[in-house]
Amino acid sequence: MKIGLLTGGGDCSGLNAAIRAVVRSAIQKGDRVFGIQDGWKGFLEGKNVPLTLEKTSGILPLGGTILGSARVNPLKVRGGIEKCLRHFRRLKLDVLISVGGEGTLRIASVFSQKGMPIICIPKTIDNDTWGTDYTVGFDTAVQIATDAIDRLHTTAESHRRVMIVEVMGRHAGWIATFSGIAGGADAILIPEEVFEIKELCRIIRKRSRRGRKFSIFVVSEDARIRLSNGRILKTPLKKDEYGDVKLGGIGELLGRELQKKTGSEVRVTVLGHIQRGGSPTAFDRVLATRLGVAAVDLAHQKRFGVIAGIDGMRIRVLPIQEAARKLKTVIPEFSQIGRIFFG
Amino acid sequence: MKIGLLTGGGDCSGLNAAIRAVVRSAIQKGDRVFGIQDGWKGFLEGKNVPLTLEKTSGILPLGGTILGSARVNPLKVRGGIEKCLRHFRRLKLDVLISVGGEGTLRIASVFSQKGMPIICIPKTIDNDTWGTDYTVGFDTAVQIATDAIDRLHTTAESHRRVMIVEVMGRHAGWIATFSGIAGGADAILIPEEVFEIKELCRIIRKRSRRGRKFSIFVVSEDARIRLSNGRILKTPLKKDEYGDVKLGGIGELLGRELQKKTGSEVRVTVLGHIQRGGSPTAFDRVLATRLGVAAVDLAHQKRFGVIAGIDGMRIRVLPIQEAARKLKTVIPEFSQIGRIFFG
Amino acid sequence: MKIGLLTGGGDCSGLNAAIRAVVRSAIQKGDRVFGIQDGWKGFLEGKNVPLTLEKTSGILPLGGTILGSARVNPLKVRGGIEKCLRHFRRLKLDVLISVGGEGTLRIASVFSQKGMPIICIPKTIDNDTWGTDYTVGFDTAVQIATDAIDRLHTTAESHRRVMIVEVMGRHAGWIATFSGIAGGADAILIPEEVFEIKELCRIIRKRSRRGRKFSIFVVSEDARIRLSNGRILKTPLKKDEYGDVKLGGIGELLGRELQKKTGSEVRVTVLGHIQRGGSPTAFDRVLATRLGVAAVDLAHQKRFGVIAGIDGMRIRVLPIQEAARKLKTVIPEFSQIGRIFFG
Amino acid sequence: MKIGLLTGGGDCSGLNAAIRAVVRSAIQKGDRVFGIQDGWKGFLEGKNVPLTLEKTSGILPLGGTILGSARVNPLKVRGGIEKCLRHFRRLKLDVLISVGGEGTLRIASVFSQKGMPIICIPKTIDNDTWGTDYTVGFDTAVQIATDAIDRLHTTAESHRRVMIVEVMGRHAGWIATFSGIAGGADAILIPEEVFEIKELCRIIRKRSRRGRKFSIFVVSEDARIRLSNGRILKTPLKKDEYGDVKLGGIGELLGRELQKKTGSEVRVTVLGHIQRGGSPTAFDRVLATRLGVAAVDLAHQKRFGVIAGIDGMRIRVLPIQEAARKLKTVIPEFSQIGRIFFG
Repeated sequence: MKIGLLTGGGDCSGLNAAIRAVVRSAIQKGDRVFGIQDGWKGFLEGKNVPLTLEKTSGILPLGGTILGSARVNPLKVRGGIEKCLRHFRRLKLDVLISVGGEGTLRIASVFSQKGMPIICIPKTIDNDTWGTDYTVGFDTAVQIATDAIDRLHTTAESHRRVMIVEVMGRHAGWIATFSGIAGGADAILIPEEVFEIKELCRIIRKRSRRGRKFSIFVVSEDARIRLSNGRILKTPLKKDEYGDVKLGGIGELLGRELQKKTGSEVRVTVLGHIQRGGSPTAFDRVLATRLGVAAVDLAHQKRFGVIAGIDGMRIRVLPIQEAARKLKTVIPEFSQIGRIFFG
Repeated sequence: MKIGLLTGGGDCSGLNAAIRAVVRSAIQKGDRVFGIQDGWKGFLEGKNVPLTLEKTSGILPLGGTILGSARVNPLKVRGGIEKCLRHFRRLKLDVLISVGGEGTLRIASVFSQKGMPIICIPKTIDNDTWGTDYTVGFDTAVQIATDAIDRLHTTAESHRRVMIVEVMGRHAGWIATFSGIAGGADAILIPEEVFEIKELCRIIRKRSRRGRKFSIFVVSEDARIRLSNGRILKTPLKKDEYGDVKLGGIGELLGRELQKKTGSEVRVTVLGHIQRGGSPTAFDRVLATRLGVAAVDLAHQKRFGVIAGIDGMRIRVLPIQEAARKLKTVIPEFSQIGRIFFG
Repeated sequence: MKIGLLTGGGDCSGLNAAIRAVVRSAIQKGDRVFGIQDGWKGFLEGKNVPLTLEKTSGILPLGGTILGSARVNPLKVRGGIEKCLRHFRRLKLDVLISVGGEGTLRIASVFSQKGMPIICIPKTIDNDTWGTDYTVGFDTAVQIATDAIDRLHTTAESHRRVMIVEVMGRHAGWIATFSGIAGGADAILIPEEVFEIKELCRIIRKRSRRGRKFSIFVVSEDARIRLSNGRILKTPLKKDEYGDVKLGGIGELLGRELQKKTGSEVRVTVLGHIQRGGSPTAFDRVLATRLGVAAVDLAHQKRFGVIAGIDGMRIRVLPIQEAARKLKTVIPEFSQIGRIFFG
Repeated sequence: MKIGLLTGGGDCSGLNAAIRAVVRSAIQKGDRVFGIQDGWKGFLEGKNVPLTLEKTSGILPLGGTILGSARVNPLKVRGGIEKCLRHFRRLKLDVLISVGGEGTLRIASVFSQKGMPIICIPKTIDNDTWGTDYTVGFDTAVQIATDAIDRLHTTAESHRRVMIVEVMGRHAGWIATFSGIAGGADAILIPEEVFEIKELCRIIRKRSRRGRKFSIFVVSEDARIRLSNGRILKTPLKKDEYGDVKLGGIGELLGRELQKKTGSEVRVTVLGHIQRGGSPTAFDRVLATRLGVAAVDLAHQKRFGVIAGIDGMRIRVLPIQEAARKLKTVIPEFSQIGRIFFG
């Protein structure tokens, strides 16, 4: 077979592990693999490079993607869909394996409907892809955020401060939930619910009465807090000119409120892009490798238009259309766990 | 409720996270928790200590167990079962939550049949407990082994050596499989199969022909290798006087054979106890916390004689008898993955 | 002897290692140690607690300080000096060992002149204390910043971005210099010099011509950049109401300029408080232990009014007055190294 | 200038950082650099490869050496010295920069006396090179050993065991000393002294009486212990057929004795080759970079026959002959520190 391979959207840890798995698995079956460079942008431009054992040697522990990525959406480019279909035919590809998140799924869904044989591997630090327990890059992001919370804990305790940690997670609070539980946060604020400022103040005061003169709050970048006057505090809608690092986001806004209302010393840390990069955890490497191998297997079984996810210990295959239709938000069990540890 | 809590068997990372979750969750529901010290040994002796929010504060990121553990089996002590039942009644416990592996499950199974209300939380670095995708401590052990393999990779490549890494895993090769895939091992030898020495030599030679003058082999402590004369190479049956660190184990034996047969420079590293200790990964902390919370929930639902495991993203509850009956060994999909990356 | 011990100023990793070393060393010599809580604030209030082997057991690998700290300056409190001297006499202390940075040195200098027997151990993540090669906490801060730069590298490369990392370092650029060299930064901007914006744009363009479509800039929080119109870009003087986390600092300002001038996609990460916390590196633990032991030795030699620093492999003792007089800024050799790697 | 560059002896972390620094610094000065492959073995065979910015891009955080290494001594090969001198002339090199330890220094000393312009950069995990505070690779080895001791601590405490950690360090106990202090070991056994078994038993018993039912001992691979009958326990002289991994070394021998004599449960961990590999610490990267830059500076100043070391914060230059003459063993101050923490 002739396989096209691209990594789309924001980068995360584990992409190279997935690339290596696809290439090794395909070559073992006698296939050839062509890497599309810079994600969907490269697909629009027909940029590609043959991938060999040598080119993918030693990349397993490395963050980023050797194929590059870019936040370009061919559906939003005039004539983009036709261009991509033309390049696909010109390269005589039998299948396109695309490693991506929400945006990539939606693009793949359209191409699949246009008849292009396509298979998706879910990756995003946000873990909000439907049809898989975990997405590639999530576990690493959680580990990085947890390491940061561990560090902030000792400072919070020594200085008797409230520490706010703003983590990524636009539509789903998975990173905040997992790193908040793992880091022992005293409150976890996710986009799925609206939180009351007076409830947060109460946690700080209740802890203080127990002699715990510090608190750690983990906040998703898109969390919302209701003030006493009913107004909703959230990251300003106007996007920052740099794109997705929203300086002066919800973390800072919440910090000002809490300091004003409780008199506690508050400090804010915005983790930002370090959540996306660097060497993947063992969990992410195993996940990426399994999904990469599964994608090639699916290609040989001619099961196109699907996404290869994980369900417990087994591979789960779902139509792209179905996975693209909804987001996987945090399940209620976790909110309950959060409440046990509040205060 | 009055809850007894113990950690049994060999220690691993994440036990303190489970203890903290049980205590916090129980206290929030108005329960009292008594920690049984030194595992089943303490249960035999009736040693216990009340556990409070204060006593479990700050233990989340710590390895080991504040309750202590010991490798004592009450079923093998004369009158042990009766002693334990007596202590359980004397303490007026409503339930015993025991965090343990295979051995603990078998003990719990007997006590459960004798009418003791008991709930198990699966923990073992080996991940061989039936009824759960993952056991507490496994992810941390895999991460430690993967970090070690990453380090050995650079030495192997610089010196053109064959590096053998012996990891734990007595009956199931999960640590070897996951860390081998995550570390990019060239062969993964697990107890579930018998491997051929000539196949292993072939991998080294094939890689050498491709210009890859080094190899990394990950070996479970109980792996078996068939020599050309049909003899099976394995860790000597005679247990070392220290207990479970078997000096001169399969890693060393295999190293000697490979050096003799291929002429390559071979080095052996036995990871040993570092796989059991230290701060747990975020994954293990979340898992331990969820299972701890679930165990208290089950106690309040009076669902006794069960083990609280994880199935994908959800809690899975299974009768102890069923979980104690079999071991979860490595599923065939992983052997297939291993083969793709061999050589 | 009766030894008072306090940790002053902002916290950092390694304080507990220093506390443990003082206590163990003193107890072995038959001394008693009293911990002053919450830094100079506690000294003003006469708050103290006896420190024992048990109380300092297990604290070596922990960040923060079990004694607490606070940013209170007794010299700026009415009657503060007298209060402190009175508490010192009332406690019948033979010596005060204070672990602190620049501020603590200046306070200690005044108390020493007033006749109080005092010995200082230098700690600050900024490494700007005169009279020692390294201060406690610096190596850990550098390691954390380097880990972050490693992570950002892969994202920068995958997305072809300019990544700006803002690190701490108010008067001296040591963290930026060391982490910038260790992380392979393409420019290192420290407070000791003024940098030209056109020089920074040139680096980005030159790298781009060589096919390196990304760059990493490490910036000290107090770095200054000269714009084409001669204006100096720096962190706004007006202090943020939270204290030392200056939101919208030099990193962000520089990012906006570079994006405007080069058209490159720029992302900014402000590391903030994670540089101060968490488990210290081995280097910081050894340094803190050595200085703690040395401080007790000096006390027994009645060498008061001094700071115990490190000079190569040996302990160096300097009068507090001398060390308090100047700051140790980055030596020129390092700027030269930086230039070699620019672009 | 035309610079030859080789890495000799056992590998360690930070070699690639040194290579990168030499190449970048040299190219900036208009020089050309030729990498000699596989250490002195490659020099004997005249194997070399031109080194460019591209070839050294991205190697800073990687362990190992892109040039390869081998334990071959040209002084012990018939006609080896002449062969090397001939290759040096044939390549028309102006200087050879060799990154190595004790063995490399002795070889360099001979070549220097024969008139070859040569400059050394000290590297060895053992830190036993004369003329420098620290050697490249030492800090990383110490950090790895400290991380391992941290992990073993929690297991030791949970199971009330004596844990023995055998670390590298053939002639000097620097790794044991630094990691032992950093990891809070209860005894540190180095090759520089002979230790008494009864003293070690006394530590275990004394701690046990204080309620500390566990101990951690760090042992250099060449430590010696005197038994009650006067016999000296040490790693068997007969070298293992694999080379430097001595299975059944002093760690195991000591473990058997202590278990026999104290009745405590003892476990032994031999860290082995993981101390040599993987990503270098920030400290090692800065050190390697500084020494690499200094070596090129020295070449341009025509200061040949020297070693570039570190003395506090400054570069120190010493004649190779002098540095090759002695080993830097652990200074007495550290033994004193060790004793404070014993038991």
